[in-house]
Amino acid sequence: MKLPGQEEFDVSSAYENVPTGELDSGPGSGPSPDSSSDTDNRELGLSNDPLLFIQLNELLGWPQALEWRETGRWVLFEEKVEVGAGRWSAPHVPTLALPSLQELRSLLAEGLVLLDCPAQSLLELVEQVTRLASLSPELRGQLQSLLLQRPQHLIQTTSTRPCWRSAHPREAFHDEEAPLKEQRQNPLRQKLPEGAEAGAVLAGELGFLAQPLGAFVRLQDPVVLGPLTEVPLPSRFFCLFLGPSTLGRSYHEMGRAMAILLSDPQFQWSARRASNLQDLLAALDAFLEEVILLPPGRWDPTARMPPPKCRPSQHKRLPSQTREARRGAPAEDRHGHPPHAPSPELQRTGRLFGGLVQDVRRKASWYPSDFLDALHPQCFSAVLYIYLATITNAITFGGLLGEATDGAQGVLESFLGTAVAGTAFCLMAGQPLTILSSTGPVLVFERLLFSFSRDYSLDYLPFRLWVGIWVATFCLALVATEASVLVRYFTHFTEEGFCALISLIFIYDAVSKMLSLTRAYPIQGPGSPAYGCFCQYPDPGGNESQWIRTKPKDRDDIMSTDLGLVNASLLPPPECARRGGHPRGPGCHTAPDIALLSLLLFLTSFLFAMALKHVKTSRFFPSMMRKVLSDFSSVLAILLGCGLDAFLGLATPKLTVPREFKPTLPGRGWLVSPFGTNPWWLSVAAALPALLLSILIFMDQQITAVILNRAEYRLRKGAGFHLDLFCVAMLMLLTSVLGLPWYVSTTVISLAHMDSLRRESRACAPGESPSFLGIREQRLTGLVVFILTGISIFLAPVLKFVPMPVLYGIFLYMGVAAISSIQFMKRVQLLLIPAKHQPDLLLLRHVPLSRVHLFTAIQLACLGLLWIVKSTPAAIIFPIMLLGLVGVRKALEWVFSPQELLWLDEMMPEKETSMHEKGLEPEYSFSGSDSKDLELMYQPKAPEINISVN
Amino acid sequence: MKLPGQEEFDVSSAYENVPTGELDSGPGSGPSPDSSSDTDNRELGLSNDPLLFIQLNELLGWPQALEWRETGRWVLFEEKVEVGAGRWSAPHVPTLALPSLQELRSLLAEGLVLLDCPAQSLLELVEQVTRLASLSPELRGQLQSLLLQRPQHLIQTTSTRPCWRSAHPREAFHDEEAPLKEQRQNPLRQKLPEGAEAGAVLAGELGFLAQPLGAFVRLQDPVVLGPLTEVPLPSRFFCLFLGPSTLGRSYHEMGRAMAILLSDPQFQWSARRASNLQDLLAALDAFLEEVILLPPGRWDPTARMPPPKCRPSQHKRLPSQTREARRGAPAEDRHGHPPHAPSPELQRTGRLFGGLVQDVRRKASWYPSDFLDALHPQCFSAVLYIYLATITNAITFGGLLGEATDGAQGVLESFLGTAVAGTAFCLMAGQPLTILSSTGPVLVFERLLFSFSRDYSLDYLPFRLWVGIWVATFCLALVATEASVLVRYFTHFTEEGFCALISLIFIYDAVSKMLSLTRAYPIQGPGSPAYGCFCQYPDPGGNESQWIRTKPKDRDDIMSTDLGLVNASLLPPPECARRGGHPRGPGCHTAPDIALLSLLLFLTSFLFAMALKHVKTSRFFPSMMRKVLSDFSSVLAILLGCGLDAFLGLATPKLTVPREFKPTLPGRGWLVSPFGTNPWWLSVAAALPALLLSILIFMDQQITAVILNRAEYRLRKGAGFHLDLFCVAMLMLLTSVLGLPWYVSTTVISLAHMDSLRRESRACAPGESPSFLGIREQRLTGLVVFILTGISIFLAPVLKFVPMPVLYGIFLYMGVAAISSIQFMKRVQLLLIPAKHQPDLLLLRHVPLSRVHLFTAIQLACLGLLWIVKSTPAAIIFPIMLLGLVGVRKALEWVFSPQELLWLDEMMPEKETSMHEKGLEPEYSFSGSDSKDLELMYQPKAPEINISVN
Repeated sequence: MKLPGQEEFDVSSAYENVPTGELDSGPGSGPSPDSSSDTDNRELGLSNDPLLFIQLNELLGWPQALEWRETGRWVLFEEKVEVGAGRWSAPHVPTLALPSLQELRSLLAEGLVLLDCPAQSLLELVEQVTRLASLSPELRGQLQSLLLQRPQHLIQTTSTRPCWRSAHPREAFHDEEAPLKEQRQNPLRQKLPEGAEAGAVLAGELGFLAQPLGAFVRLQDPVVLGPLTEVPLPSRFFCLFLGPSTLGRSYHEMGRAMAILLSDPQFQWSARRASNLQDLLAALDAFLEEVILLPPGRWDPTARMPPPKCRPSQHKRLPSQTREARRGAPAEDRHGHPPHAPSPELQRTGRLFGGLVQDVRRKASWYPSDFLDALHPQCFSAVLYIYLATITNAITFGGLLGEATDGAQGVLESFLGTAVAGTAFCLMAGQPLTILSSTGPVLVFERLLFSFSRDYSLDYLPFRLWVGIWVATFCLALVATEASVLVRYFTHFTEEGFCALISLIFIYDAVSKMLSLTRAYPIQGPGSPAYGCFCQYPDPGGNESQWIRTKPKDRDDIMSTDLGLVNASLLPPPECARRGGHPRGPGCHTAPDIALLSLLLFLTSFLFAMALKHVKTSRFFPSMMRKVLSDFSSVLAILLGCGLDAFLGLATPKLTVPREFKPTLPGRGWLVSPFGTNPWWLSVAAALPALLLSILIFMDQQITAVILNRAEYRLRKGAGFHLDLFCVAMLMLLTSVLGLPWYVSTTVISLAHMDSLRRESRACAPGESPSFLGIREQRLTGLVVFILTGISIFLAPVLKFVPMPVLYGIFLYMGVAAISSIQFMKRVQLLLIPAKHQPDLLLLRHVPLSRVHLFTAIQLACLGLLWIVKSTPAAIIFPIMLLGLVGVRKALEWVFSPQELLWLDEMMPEKETSMHEKGLEPEYSFSGSDSKDLELMYQPKAPEINISVN
Repeated sequence: MKLPGQEEFDVSSAYENVPTGELDSGPGSGPSPDSSSDTDNRELGLSNDPLLFIQLNELLGWPQALEWRETGRWVLFEEKVEVGAGRWSAPHVPTLALPSLQELRSLLAEGLVLLDCPAQSLLELVEQVTRLASLSPELRGQLQSLLLQRPQHLIQTTSTRPCWRSAHPREAFHDEEAPLKEQRQNPLRQKLPEGAEAGAVLAGELGFLAQPLGAFVRLQDPVVLGPLTEVPLPSRFFCLFLGPSTLGRSYHEMGRAMAILLSDPQFQWSARRASNLQDLLAALDAFLEEVILLPPGRWDPTARMPPPKCRPSQHKRLPSQTREARRGAPAEDRHGHPPHAPSPELQRTGRLFGGLVQDVRRKASWYPSDFLDALHPQCFSAVLYIYLATITNAITFGGLLGEATDGAQGVLESFLGTAVAGTAFCLMAGQPLTILSSTGPVLVFERLLFSFSRDYSLDYLPFRLWVGIWVATFCLALVATEASVLVRYFTHFTEEGFCALISLIFIYDAVSKMLSLTRAYPIQGPGSPAYGCFCQYPDPGGNESQWIRTKPKDRDDIMSTDLGLVNASLLPPPECARRGGHPRGPGCHTAPDIALLSLLLFLTSFLFAMALKHVKTSRFFPSMMRKVLSDFSSVLAILLGCGLDAFLGLATPKLTVPREFKPTLPGRGWLVSPFGTNPWWLSVAAALPALLLSILIFMDQQITAVILNRAEYRLRKGAGFHLDLFCVAMLMLLTSVLGLPWYVSTTVISLAHMDSLRRESRACAPGESPSFLGIREQRLTGLVVFILTGISIFLAPVLKFVPMPVLYGIFLYMGVAAISSIQFMKRVQLLLIPAKHQPDLLLLRHVPLSRVHLFTAIQLACLGLLWIVKSTPAAIIFPIMLLGLVGVRKALEWVFSPQELLWLDEMMPEKETSMHEKGLEPEYSFSGSDSKDLELMYQPKAPEINISVN
């Protein structure tokens, strides 16, 4: 139930992502191909140039045994050969010293620069380079054979043993240009995208040279230079820095400097286009202008900096007028305050059902592609994952609902309803990635409704039917009046309040249900009254054993009853009954150990699910395995709980499941009778609770829809707020008639669904994190999930082995996972963290701490108030209170400045326009000092849909 | 039980720390004062120059409302004013752009440089600066009044509300030089050391200047320049960079560059000594030479780098010949492979008891200071902490020993023995920081000895007495022959093997004891036999109730016994007994719920202790509170367990405590009879187990001693290996005679003791971590702890409320904490981490992964073998097997190269000398490429004694 955009948000995506042109082009444009070209653009920032793999070969062993050895490589980050360990270092941000760059510059200036060299092989290249260098013929020959010597690469195959490919003396040159076997088998080759080019930097000390020799060669047509680079890519650049050893270690550093320069997108862009030496030197100077300096005494140059999570955008390296133009975009917080850009779906048409018609029209054009786009293997794993999440949810909520409504709902209804409603929704909805579920708020409301109808001795299901009919009517009215455009007023404040309340209800319910179990199965303390139980048989004559001297002085005080028995034994009750006796005594119905075992199961399933959830971010195991363990954490926790329970074999309370396919409530058919024993006017009176439920359903459905359709997910097919609400209304009617649970969209599983369908660029460079491309938007995965859920109804008998405490544990886990993922909780935690230790949140850089605390305190107060309302007999009106959050948020505009609200929450629609008019943006009163932060906003950053599934 | 030096180790300390001169100077030199001067030297690396606080005041508001506002400050790291939030940013490593440094350089070169300016006040200073600048008189006046304007500082007092001290128009200048109230109240002032100086950098755009104005002033005598800096420190430097706004934002960056330059120790050193502009520019160029460059496309310049854990040593910035000389020192690993430098205490004298005599002589000279050095408030908290740890240990081990020996030992003996042995040891020992305890290995051995004597029906305590006598004799022989010098053969391999075995025994014992509880109190499953219990009364006539028709057909099959009773009731057994009846039936002696509650208590205390332990590294709560929670984690976990148990009130098994002050074993006096019922020859035969126990005690005692006396703790008073062993031998004798547990030094509590006595420099600069100065070496804290333990014997009756499962939980926690802290476990974890995700350990940079895994596998195999031996009837010989680890380590020299062993383990003594002769050091075959790593070794780094106390 994590609200996305709390963590990460990308402004630029809001503008680049759904160009109106593309939206209008209709289904014909279809799904964008999985090409990584757009990624590369993003990565390299500026151009469509191919990715460049740069390798540094060092000349070692002077003077005895000269050999070339690969000592470093670069794509985006630096990797260094750990000589002792024979492995590649972790990719890290390279660091340089200024003198080595300066030495490189002077060597380049004096040296050989060959741009667009027509060489077709290493031999030709070497000949051209050595011919141009002013060397004696003898030296030239020596140098040529040295340059043609095969270098040693460190190629790590998948086995743990790295193989140093050794340099055997070469017999002939004729097969030189053919890549070697180990080069072709290099796993790095698979990672690098099609069309990648290589750059080779050769550096080292060479005693027989009188003076340094520097050469920079750009090949006209890139060509595979034999075994020069570890990956057999066509080389575009060839750099050579050799010289006498007087300069000490500088050739190594010069080579590194060249490689780092080439790996810089800006320099590379220039180097590809340079037409003479001056262009090249200008590019180097431009690099120097932008280089970041760290003072030497404050950072250890030997420390390796891990690749940053997000690299700086190359936008900031655009010419400055472009940058200025971009500055007009509304500001936003790294922690997720998106600018409020009303999507076209939320424009009011002004016609009755106008929004719905528009939604249908828009979605219809995508309909065929909604099935074709699902033809990808990724969809299979998505189906498996979401199917398990869905039935876990169905079991948990079915079980809880069954308990809350005395069996008016149950696991069977839960499965059936999920299958029916889900399938219908997937086929018709505006946002088919949504997963329906009978989740939190509706469960709370149904429980309230049930206890209300029980208190007034109403026939529940008929009453509920009328509520459903009214809700459908109200929702239809909301659709007709295009009320969904009001979702723009749902800011983070509203969403967080809603989410926090629901999470707290989860947590409270789980704990209170667990505690009620300990009351149902009391722990037998030393003073516990219920201790004795024995088995009474019929006597040998066939009569029941007789009570001798029974004097029931005080029936209530069973302790003091003197008993006189014949034909009794101390068999345990089940055994006794089996042998034809009757268990007698106050202890017969107690079940020792059950309460504590339940507690143990509850804690085990909760802690295990939590622990598995965190496996994802641990270092252990391959990432695939971690993902599986983490994704299926709740399923695994339930299985563990069931196993533990089965192992001990105690009679813990289990999930009640029907033995056959019929409604859980005995004596009712699948269709709910419209009145039952209720008076007729109740069908009218049901409009009142229906009004409340309509508010709740509207809020729950639309908050989820807003979250799912956020710009950072880069959805291309658009949302369907009106259509979704229409479908929910129709399903309300259907489920009420059939007496099935009510369904709305559920944030958590829907987000998990989207997460399992994310399209990502392949990581093509070591140290690079894959970038987010979009979501496979289609209807098929959801459809298959719900069809499978329907089939699973026949699995229901297996579910009777699931102990209730395990489900409570999962329920607790869901609540804790949901509440800990919202930004509000992070701000609550700030209350406990001393200012000195607070994380460096952008929010805290811009809003005084006391104001942040005030905002948090107000949210806490609202939450407290909601909780109090929920606990009083007036609980049923809590949907109205939830709606009240929107009002409270509006009132906050008198307390907080627009800038503060922009950082703490987001803008309300009207305010937004006025903000633009007034030019209000987060305050940068000191243009010089703070403009750095402005840059921060344009970092391209993929959303991580990293949520806790149910 | 963490082995220190696994994590962090400081080579330089081994050489700088205990100069022989200081050792010989005797007690007269006493404890070194807590001055922070040596810290400052270390911090600033080069000189005794005072610390410099640098502040950047920016001129803002041009042209309407000019005002000076503090926007940044530097001591070691940069802090920036968060304008929106009105708070200081977290300290971070500053970053610069090259152009701003270059602009600064040219402005300095053209500008005003006043070295040793004699100004005595801000007014004088401003007059001098403006006089020298070529300005019109009108401009000069404007500039003067501007410079005298009071700047706005951001002074964060302890309240959360930061106070922007606003600039009221100044009426007069006469009180200008007096520091303002808010300046004096600045909390930063308390942090900065005595004698710190300030540097003020003023920068900004000033439209009325025709051309840029740069000034660098070094004051001859630093003087408080009124309200110029937020802390009223005497200013040494005053820099001014003003100019027309044409250059855009560069004044801000130039000011920052100047401040960063001044905060660089090397530049500051030069700036303090520069005699002309050229010196200053040369210093700037030297800074540029050493600056670290990050390529612009790979690191986001707006990301703030947190201060590194260890800053680079300034050694590397010494002239290069000095650096070369230092390179001779043996290499060492960041993860703790100290070079094996045999301390003077371990030199063999060759005389009988020669080592002991030397130890006594050396320690005697420190004896008075051992008491005087304890006069520091820190010692009070150390006493409290170690006292609680000691009695927790005494309770846990006493309880376990009592169980293992059927009461031959018990809690009372544990308390008494700890008090007696500890007091005596603290008074006499060579290393009085050591805490004695009857811990792991000895407990294991005593249990083996007890089961052996029970198997052969021996009288345990007299047999044990003879074992003790023999052990004392053997240990004396070891002291006489100076055997302690052999501890040099105990490498990490030995220590880790020992530690891992003991930890595993802890874990195994805790779990198996917990499981044996579940057998003693079986869970009552549905088929459980023991169900019935009732209460039988004497009948009204005074006779016992009679059995009617008792026909005990099959007594064994109690289930099928038909019972006929009169005068029976179903009262629970205790109530029944109270009313004069007798509980009858198989269910009377079962205790339901006990097993599961015990399990719950076990898990609760274990998990709670683990969680509290980790509070130390969390962000929440003030650091003081975190430290308390973490330090007292086991005490708090025990209290929680007891509270939970008391709340439920079940009859869980509790700690057995004597009701009066007499031996736990009934019928024995305090003196053990020498023979008891044993045959006389057993006193001779006891020599055999005594030999084994001697090996164990020698190893346990000396491994702890080696760890405690490691160079990184910077102990000044030297060790006393021989004296310590002598004391242990004498205490063996005493405790055997009195029938008390045996005692040796315990690593974990001793390290905790040292940790609580660490002397640290106060953190004087934001972002700086305090540096380690040494340990308060004295005898008093230990002494008081053990006297308090002795007094606590009378608290013993309170202990009967401690449930055994809670103690088992703590026992498990001790084992897990100990095993997870050794480097061996880190290597075991590497087996599970894919190479890509492995942490960047220095070890992995230098040793091939397969070799690391092989070493780990060999250690695992050794451990497995030890475990197997321990589990067979031959268990009692396991001390010999432990000793065998030394041999295995020796044999490893055939498998691994010396370089590999140097990284994986450490050198054995003979090898070490030969290593030096051969010039073998971790391989740097490519002098150029790897020399960076060499530097890594000279980082001054304080050891963090961060261990888990019991």
